[in-house]
Amino acid sequence: MSKPIVFLGNGGHASVLYDVVSKQGTDIVATVSEKTPQSDSLFSQFENYNDDGFRFEFKPNDVELVNGIGFMPFTDIRQRIYQKYKNLGYKFASVIDNSSTVSPSAKLGEGVQLLMGSIVQANAKLGDNSIVNTGVIVEHDCNIGNHCHLAPRSLLCGHVDIQDNVFIGAGSTIKNNLLIAESSVVGMGSKVLRNVAQSEVYFNN
Amino acid sequence: MSKPIVFLGNGGHASVLYDVVSKQGTDIVATVSEKTPQSDSLFSQFENYNDDGFRFEFKPNDVELVNGIGFMPFTDIRQRIYQKYKNLGYKFASVIDNSSTVSPSAKLGEGVQLLMGSIVQANAKLGDNSIVNTGVIVEHDCNIGNHCHLAPRSLLCGHVDIQDNVFIGAGSTIKNNLLIAESSVVGMGSKVLRNVAQSEVYFNN
Amino acid sequence: MSKPIVFLGNGGHASVLYDVVSKQGTDIVATVSEKTPQSDSLFSQFENYNDDGFRFEFKPNDVELVNGIGFMPFTDIRQRIYQKYKNLGYKFASVIDNSSTVSPSAKLGEGVQLLMGSIVQANAKLGDNSIVNTGVIVEHDCNIGNHCHLAPRSLLCGHVDIQDNVFIGAGSTIKNNLLIAESSVVGMGSKVLRNVAQSEVYFNN
Repeated sequence: MSKPIVFLGNGGHASVLYDVVSKQGTDIVATVSEKTPQSDSLFSQFENYNDDGFRFEFKPNDVELVNGIGFMPFTDIRQRIYQKYKNLGYKFASVIDNSSTVSPSAKLGEGVQLLMGSIVQANAKLGDNSIVNTGVIVEHDCNIGNHCHLAPRSLLCGHVDIQDNVFIGAGSTIKNNLLIAESSVVGMGSKVLRNVAQSEVYFNN
Repeated sequence: MSKPIVFLGNGGHASVLYDVVSKQGTDIVATVSEKTPQSDSLFSQFENYNDDGFRFEFKPNDVELVNGIGFMPFTDIRQRIYQKYKNLGYKFASVIDNSSTVSPSAKLGEGVQLLMGSIVQANAKLGDNSIVNTGVIVEHDCNIGNHCHLAPRSLLCGHVDIQDNVFIGAGSTIKNNLLIAESSVVGMGSKVLRNVAQSEVYFNN
Repeated sequence: MSKPIVFLGNGGHASVLYDVVSKQGTDIVATVSEKTPQSDSLFSQFENYNDDGFRFEFKPNDVELVNGIGFMPFTDIRQRIYQKYKNLGYKFASVIDNSSTVSPSAKLGEGVQLLMGSIVQANAKLGDNSIVNTGVIVEHDCNIGNHCHLAPRSLLCGHVDIQDNVFIGAGSTIKNNLLIAESSVVGMGSKVLRNVAQSEVYFNN
């Protein structure tokens, strides 16, 4: 991350990303949000712009963006914001915490976020704009699409395929060799022993 | 931890704490227990005192204490011992393993214990004498009271409030934005999707 | 690991072990498998032998072996291969990732494998040829036999006894003080609150 960073969003997910990049000495120059951060926020130290102000001030070659918007089920703001700024020519920086472990043979897309204690094993692939949240394990040979959120402590056993835009709930475990199809949602704490269909909402007790 | 340390207790929980502080080069000068440690114990190398002997030998300004008594449901020894020595003017050292990750914006009370691989994210608060056990994740903006035990690998999603004296069982997952009220117990491996009431014993399969 | 290493097997489990030893600068000199690795495999850079060729080329004192065969329920190839080469006089190297945490008071057998983010606490014992997979927690005073596989993110609370040849499924949690008897299988994501009998297949939802 050689260029200065601009944060999109300033809520809870952004605050965790802030911890990652600030300890790596990254130069943060601004935030972009319709909401001005509160005075006790980690982001109150930075100038905040709305979208128009940001695009006037910073051109695509000047900065890289960090997508600080979280992705909860049945929302698509994170995806839309990523696509909008990509279309305008901006580039997204990946955010990879020092405490994460990533195999040299893993392949990471643009703007991925690997948070504290996460582990990505050999030959795994991770698409653009996807979140590997706190303590997540992605085992060997998994293939994860774009715009996914693996919520904290979810676990994908070996050779799991996850298509685009999937949400895997916190603490869930996905058996090896399964397919979790596009735009599906796996509820918090689920144990998944079969494939999940496109747009399916999977949940167990 | 600049002052010499005295361990209260010498059982299983104390042995894990011992690993944390011994690799940090802390000076341990004694243990306090009614039971003399067995010859093969990690603690047999230290002089063991009963309560009277300890208070005669070490004054509140000479040492800091480590609370090596665990906290299992429906017990209160750990809490009572903490309160007793606080009332006598002693101070409790926090024990934070080198492999844990704590946000700079997190706020930690007195005598907290953060064990191996635990993670405390941005803006989280942790009260006095609470245990964040092995591999626990406390997500951003959680607020945890005094005298709590988050057992190994429990997970609090974002913005969870845990009041005083709560036990969260091993491997449990608490959904974001919930309230777990005072003196409640969440059983091992629970998935918690609603608030838990004061003194409630919550359990699911 | 001072002697050169020969890998037995070249599949998914082997690829994770490869990541561990390659970043430690270990000298890998060959693989042994009836299947020649594919050209895009991490192992295609090494000469591959079949069993006869390997034994002709490398004598027991020349090398140490890494058992790259995984252990899934109702299989015994990993166990048989270990025993066969031990009987021929070969020695197995342990494989311990730099991101794992092992108590100084833990006792580890021959050829154990402790993968990324795994934690073995005070006074735990681990038998020969056992796998402590990604993100596993073995709490204080556990006793694990030979030829066991603790699959990713399984958790053994304190004082759990696991006999030989046991498979603990991914994401499972075993309550403290339990006995999991020889050759039993605990299914993925199980919460174990009672002892498991010899050869029992334990599973819950």
